[in-house]
Amino acid sequence: MHFYSIENKRFVIAQNNKQNGIIEKIVSLSKRKGFVFQSSEIYGGLNGCWDYGPLGVELLNNIKSEWWKFMTYKDDVEGLDASILMHPRVWEASGHVENFTDPMIDCKVCKARFRLDTLAEFIGDKKKEKILRHFLQDLKEKKSKSTVFAEGIIFSGDDLNEKFTSLLENDELAPELLKEISCPQCGSKESFTKPKSFNLMFKTFLGPVEKEGNTIYLRPETAQGIFVNFLNVQSASRQKLPFGIAQIGKAFRNEINTKNFLFRTREFEQMEMQYFVRPSDDKKWYDEWKEKRMGWYLSLGIAQDKLRFHDHPPNKLAHYAKEATDIEYRFPFGWGEIEGIHNRTDFDLSRHEEYSGKSQKYYDEELKEKYIPYIIETSAGASRSFMAFLVNAYHEEEVNGETRVVLKLHPKLAPIKVAILPLVNKDGMPEVAKKIEADLRPFLKVFYDSKGAVGRRYRRQDEAGTPFCITVDTQTLQDNTVTVRERDSMEQERINIDELLNYLLNKLR
Amino acid sequence: MHFYSIENKRFVIAQNNKQNGIIEKIVSLSKRKGFVFQSSEIYGGLNGCWDYGPLGVELLNNIKSEWWKFMTYKDDVEGLDASILMHPRVWEASGHVENFTDPMIDCKVCKARFRLDTLAEFIGDKKKEKILRHFLQDLKEKKSKSTVFAEGIIFSGDDLNEKFTSLLENDELAPELLKEISCPQCGSKESFTKPKSFNLMFKTFLGPVEKEGNTIYLRPETAQGIFVNFLNVQSASRQKLPFGIAQIGKAFRNEINTKNFLFRTREFEQMEMQYFVRPSDDKKWYDEWKEKRMGWYLSLGIAQDKLRFHDHPPNKLAHYAKEATDIEYRFPFGWGEIEGIHNRTDFDLSRHEEYSGKSQKYYDEELKEKYIPYIIETSAGASRSFMAFLVNAYHEEEVNGETRVVLKLHPKLAPIKVAILPLVNKDGMPEVAKKIEADLRPFLKVFYDSKGAVGRRYRRQDEAGTPFCITVDTQTLQDNTVTVRERDSMEQERINIDELLNYLLNKLR
Repeated sequence: MHFYSIENKRFVIAQNNKQNGIIEKIVSLSKRKGFVFQSSEIYGGLNGCWDYGPLGVELLNNIKSEWWKFMTYKDDVEGLDASILMHPRVWEASGHVENFTDPMIDCKVCKARFRLDTLAEFIGDKKKEKILRHFLQDLKEKKSKSTVFAEGIIFSGDDLNEKFTSLLENDELAPELLKEISCPQCGSKESFTKPKSFNLMFKTFLGPVEKEGNTIYLRPETAQGIFVNFLNVQSASRQKLPFGIAQIGKAFRNEINTKNFLFRTREFEQMEMQYFVRPSDDKKWYDEWKEKRMGWYLSLGIAQDKLRFHDHPPNKLAHYAKEATDIEYRFPFGWGEIEGIHNRTDFDLSRHEEYSGKSQKYYDEELKEKYIPYIIETSAGASRSFMAFLVNAYHEEEVNGETRVVLKLHPKLAPIKVAILPLVNKDGMPEVAKKIEADLRPFLKVFYDSKGAVGRRYRRQDEAGTPFCITVDTQTLQDNTVTVRERDSMEQERINIDELLNYLLNKLR
Repeated sequence: MHFYSIENKRFVIAQNNKQNGIIEKIVSLSKRKGFVFQSSEIYGGLNGCWDYGPLGVELLNNIKSEWWKFMTYKDDVEGLDASILMHPRVWEASGHVENFTDPMIDCKVCKARFRLDTLAEFIGDKKKEKILRHFLQDLKEKKSKSTVFAEGIIFSGDDLNEKFTSLLENDELAPELLKEISCPQCGSKESFTKPKSFNLMFKTFLGPVEKEGNTIYLRPETAQGIFVNFLNVQSASRQKLPFGIAQIGKAFRNEINTKNFLFRTREFEQMEMQYFVRPSDDKKWYDEWKEKRMGWYLSLGIAQDKLRFHDHPPNKLAHYAKEATDIEYRFPFGWGEIEGIHNRTDFDLSRHEEYSGKSQKYYDEELKEKYIPYIIETSAGASRSFMAFLVNAYHEEEVNGETRVVLKLHPKLAPIKVAILPLVNKDGMPEVAKKIEADLRPFLKVFYDSKGAVGRRYRRQDEAGTPFCITVDTQTLQDNTVTVRERDSMEQERINIDELLNYLLNKLR
């Protein structure tokens, strides 16, 4: 995943209160139904960390499993599961020790710390305009040579937060502008320190002695585990270029401003694939993976009008990238990246060759040539995809004058595939229902519910996203059929019990 | 997982050079075939961390998936995926901050650090006997009141390392015995510091300021994520006692002495299930889960004579446990724990109630009573199980005067389910083979190999543990059949192509 980009630096969330109401509803549904809980909730929670409950872990596993099959069940992508702790030199080679930083300022009075690019979010719009006017007037009075540059920023575009961020990122202007801003926490004036870099990697110590030489990091991305294993995997799998290596795993970033539920967290899961190609083929594979990855989200039911590419303009590219695009999902709070596709060139393997002293070259038998391959990366957030699939599935509908909440998850992703609901607790019906349950369980995630009115039981399954509900009724005992209710259409069909498994497996395929 | 027990304190690996040869062979096969690589290998590796390669990640995923189905596809165990980073109070409540320590000593001269209970492993047996004789003589001369106690330890049992450990764990005897031991690294005499406790949790800092109050830990076990979510899961899933919560995830321990490949590592994966029961039912469920878990390993092909229970004697129980047993596998280096089953009583939930101030009581509708449930825990190491399955599968056989290396993995666990090997590269055979590949891929992990003599191709699949090899030959073009070769018996059967998928799925079920 890239780390010096729009995602980390300039992603400004549109503050839309009405839309944010939906996120609140989803957070509440998530807790009530067991999709997502706050981490360590009984201790007041741990900011930026979340736990996946019984339904959530199934949804998350299904997303990961679909991705894994999509990637590794073909013959040109191998799997990998590298450790979270890696040799510290990896992060020197990757540039993370030096560059994976956010500029921060402290309030000298109350000691609060703020990320420079989010400072403006704490100030009201009217106030922001007033500050900018005053700041510009001051520059003019002082005849500062930066006045024209500042005017350029202030009079272009509409987004006030972006203007503040751009001004604060300038070494000359930052101290002047900071004089105009009071501390959002204690209100003190002229209390800010100079901006300082803060590394976003979590660090810890290997072995019992806590000293500099023993410092290691929790990986901030899974990609490096793939790069350093390139030749190990290539030699064990006897693959030839082009081929890929895919990995799913946790990564950690010591974010200061976590927000928007699962969107920006400190602990998260990635699904990354690095595709190794001949340098001259880079454009072809970049374009191909772009399309393939977009197709994946569409095939799992994300609405087309909620997805878009956001190509990075050349002047905003990360230091390693020749070309880069984000797949963005339209969340209730605005467009947000759920996957990045990057042409990383030979940057990563060259750096690892340089830092490790071990050749990372590949011998191309056809070309009779040794070279460092180019890498096309597809880097998806499992946690962010989870959130996109959940938000995308959330629907409120009017049914018979009542509001029905239904998660229209793709059947492949649905946590529970089928619920079995015996209508009456007599006449041998529970026995038949239990038999059906036992027959389906080895193949499908099944839920059995015999309590309460069937309407309420249906609603509970709608909220869980269960695509099929089976009811056993009096007719079942006469003709060996059950009704199968489809979640989205709410239509019911009578199916013979003997054909049930095949019927369901076909629908779920 | 328990943390004050045989596993961490007293597991003394038998040093059997002949047997260790097998481990070396498996480590070498693991790298060559892509099961397991050393982490960050190009940088010289990171001690105690390993990466799973293309075959390894499939085997590991299959083990985890079988466990997950075994646990959560029934109706009384819910799944969970809690974050690795948790609130620091969790580890105060659990006792880890205070008790999860190893006693360590430093050499004042060369600064090397040793775990007290493994110090003896660096000393030869003859030397050890000499040290003990001299030490005892010295005690007698000084008329130490600890002499009788020391004699009791020295004259009981055979294991010299255990004797050293027991003596060193005694505050009176340790300084005296240490005087007799030279530093294993630099050879200095009387150079050891007093034993000190070292906490095995990796610590890091949340947020940009590295200060005491911001310290958090990488979880040393997954269990606590389950305990703190007990009521969240119970309420979302509407489960009633008895029911369980299952979780698979990474855990981290800053072990000083990592060893035996995947057996003792710093980063590892656990598969833990906590079963919440009425206090009076604890014995029944403890016994039931003991049998169920042993049955799981047997059902996946571990040889019965390589598995045993090792019940913890009452005086060796962890502070939270009323009863505990290990499932041990006979590794080439000796018996080693791959799973622990514990009656943890109400210890964990009571502690979390005390430390969080939030009631952890469950209302039992039948008994009309509120109480803290007892917990029966089954705590398996995914990484250790992986190693047990791999070691258990490794066979060398004489076939036609040559040695065949074959991994007799259970078909459900095998990384690749079926290999397709067209015999000749002509007459439309590759087309038929490719068609078979395309038909099987959506359902099975398939490998296609058309290069080299078929005998060599079979051997490569034997080493990968692939249970079935399909060869396409000239007869295929005449009667639409292929040969299916079974890995262990090496017997071949001709199967019609149209029946192939069902044939394989049945064998793999």
